[in-house]
Amino acid sequence: MGINHCRSFVPPVRTLMGPGPSDVHPRVLAAMARPTIGHLDPAFIQMMDELKSLLHYAFQTENELTIPVSAPGSAGMETCFVNLVEPGDKVVVCQNGVFGGRMKENVERCGGQPIMIEDEWGAAIDLDKVEKALKTHADAKILAFVHAETSTGVQSDAEQLCELARRYDCLTIVDAVTSLGGTPLNVDEWAIDAVYSGSQKCLSCTPGLSPVSFSERAVKKIQGRQRKVQSWFLDLNLLMNYWGSGAKRAYHHTAPVNPLYGLHESLIMIKDEGLENAWARHERHHQALRAGIEAMGLSFTVKESDRLPQLNAISVPQGVDEAAVRKRLLEQYSLEIGAGLGSLAGRVWRIGLMGYSSTPKNVMFCLGALEAVLCDLGAPIEQGKASTAARIVLS
Amino acid sequence: MGINHCRSFVPPVRTLMGPGPSDVHPRVLAAMARPTIGHLDPAFIQMMDELKSLLHYAFQTENELTIPVSAPGSAGMETCFVNLVEPGDKVVVCQNGVFGGRMKENVERCGGQPIMIEDEWGAAIDLDKVEKALKTHADAKILAFVHAETSTGVQSDAEQLCELARRYDCLTIVDAVTSLGGTPLNVDEWAIDAVYSGSQKCLSCTPGLSPVSFSERAVKKIQGRQRKVQSWFLDLNLLMNYWGSGAKRAYHHTAPVNPLYGLHESLIMIKDEGLENAWARHERHHQALRAGIEAMGLSFTVKESDRLPQLNAISVPQGVDEAAVRKRLLEQYSLEIGAGLGSLAGRVWRIGLMGYSSTPKNVMFCLGALEAVLCDLGAPIEQGKASTAARIVLS
Repeated sequence: MGINHCRSFVPPVRTLMGPGPSDVHPRVLAAMARPTIGHLDPAFIQMMDELKSLLHYAFQTENELTIPVSAPGSAGMETCFVNLVEPGDKVVVCQNGVFGGRMKENVERCGGQPIMIEDEWGAAIDLDKVEKALKTHADAKILAFVHAETSTGVQSDAEQLCELARRYDCLTIVDAVTSLGGTPLNVDEWAIDAVYSGSQKCLSCTPGLSPVSFSERAVKKIQGRQRKVQSWFLDLNLLMNYWGSGAKRAYHHTAPVNPLYGLHESLIMIKDEGLENAWARHERHHQALRAGIEAMGLSFTVKESDRLPQLNAISVPQGVDEAAVRKRLLEQYSLEIGAGLGSLAGRVWRIGLMGYSSTPKNVMFCLGALEAVLCDLGAPIEQGKASTAARIVLS
Repeated sequence: MGINHCRSFVPPVRTLMGPGPSDVHPRVLAAMARPTIGHLDPAFIQMMDELKSLLHYAFQTENELTIPVSAPGSAGMETCFVNLVEPGDKVVVCQNGVFGGRMKENVERCGGQPIMIEDEWGAAIDLDKVEKALKTHADAKILAFVHAETSTGVQSDAEQLCELARRYDCLTIVDAVTSLGGTPLNVDEWAIDAVYSGSQKCLSCTPGLSPVSFSERAVKKIQGRQRKVQSWFLDLNLLMNYWGSGAKRAYHHTAPVNPLYGLHESLIMIKDEGLENAWARHERHHQALRAGIEAMGLSFTVKESDRLPQLNAISVPQGVDEAAVRKRLLEQYSLEIGAGLGSLAGRVWRIGLMGYSSTPKNVMFCLGALEAVLCDLGAPIEQGKASTAARIVLS
């Protein structure tokens, strides 16, 4: 491909209601464009300190080792595994969607031994199965699970899972990519040992950063490792010195300066709103969307008690070409919603109401656009009822 | 630390003439703030294709596997090593500064065996020593070296080193973090097998991305590995599917959407200027800075033939507190220059003229500010001559 035709890229203006990225607030976009400064500049170091404190709040933790990894959520996941798993370690991994499978890959690539607990895609993690596995594998060192499965819209009971893990003397690694900022996540209260998230879901920052946090217990295990962490870039023993307190920081890598401005701004916005208010907002708009979806005659894939308010898996009605619906939404309304993955491919849509995307406007817009497109395609739905149903919840 | 006092972060406006990041052009900053779209959006996928083509041009290569890694240069380095080094592989590593040492760390963490060839910090890599090592270690699989040592301002002869490697049947891993876009780098002509760079040096994008390129020979080795790459996030077998051509892309991780807008824009600017013109610009402003520096009575640390035009190591005059000079430049002139690292700490300043920072304005400004600060601190320099000397080169 030649390059002579290449011009500045001017992206279309979308409404992002898929599984992430979510819409980014203009304040965060403006922060991304502020003048770049050096990663060792005193002003930048002060910003880093604030970022850590803001992450403490978002994660509800006082863990000293709470930082944004300079890469997307997948790298945050890898940070947890490469630092905590040593060759030969048994790790109990719960899988009820795509991301549990990725955890297994991580354990194997660290030379660990994954013990897989499988649940149906679209269901929460079964606590009894986990307890049985922890009993059977008394030498397991770690329990790893996904709090909010982005691939299915399912929430599992992180508090109870952590309680179980402690009872069987395991550390926990928790995927909170889609939960942070959208649904209660209490790292200290639940005694989570290692948690990672992403910038582009309920924090509504641009994609590319992964906030992580590690308990003292986890830090002790990392500091006492028999052999070096296999990744230099993700080695927390080095990153601790880089993100450590005080003026003396050991240079590790060049931080992604402008994306960190963006994350800082998005965390300021969460602080100003208040975490509890943000959680309540996600729940309220989920209920409004749900009312509209059900009034249309569509149904949720996940049973009520397991649903993630910020990621709604809707079952595709029989005979409807789900990809055609998404294509029309994108082309006619510039609205992005998500497809199903894995065993749910072709069978569900995933509608995100995350962060700045979780607004009354988007609920109404999405219901209207979806109804219009489904009608155009001749799908068997109830017409004209969705917006009223949603309005009642919102008012 | 509380968070109640945290406000939007408004960075100071600096002139960045350290070892990176360099100044970012307003066009690139504006691109960073464009509306975020989904990483699977058709418009985004078209942008990714253009990005690859623009990187082909910047690297002067037709390597199909030419992509930006979604993380800083250190992760680009790690991408090369984790994919190409298998346990037990002997890797000849040249060290003449900080980054050769980091390569050694990478080899070890991949289970490889580094054979270190050491040169003085501030000198280029000695070809004879390398050839001797390649002869002695006939079973070495890879030669790894730094083309442009950011820590010392030294350029080594990448073309000759690659020629040597081929003669002894080794693949090459080349650090081009500071050379890409600033000084000739001809990946195909020199037959480099694996090369990584950074977005924040002579490309003048914001920090956080690492362009990489791999030859067919390298790809074959990666595809024929005995065991999986130890990093899931950096596994090129997976990344190839993600960045592959055509509409069918396998989801791997969520791309850092807005930073990629920025990189796209910075590469458009390089294309519009022309690579050869960019190289000539870096050389011209280096010569102007040099004339001014020498007219002041200061001297370069690196001998003339080994100097990197985009990163100038200047010897600190005896009796001058180098940190005090940098502090004053930052506080009085909002000008950032770099300190020495490792064995050069306290003995040199590193003045970058990279990318958008490489302008006549910055040459003049830096000489003027440096002269003023040195005079204020009572350093024994020639006064009033630097700007005339630089002007003669620039005119």
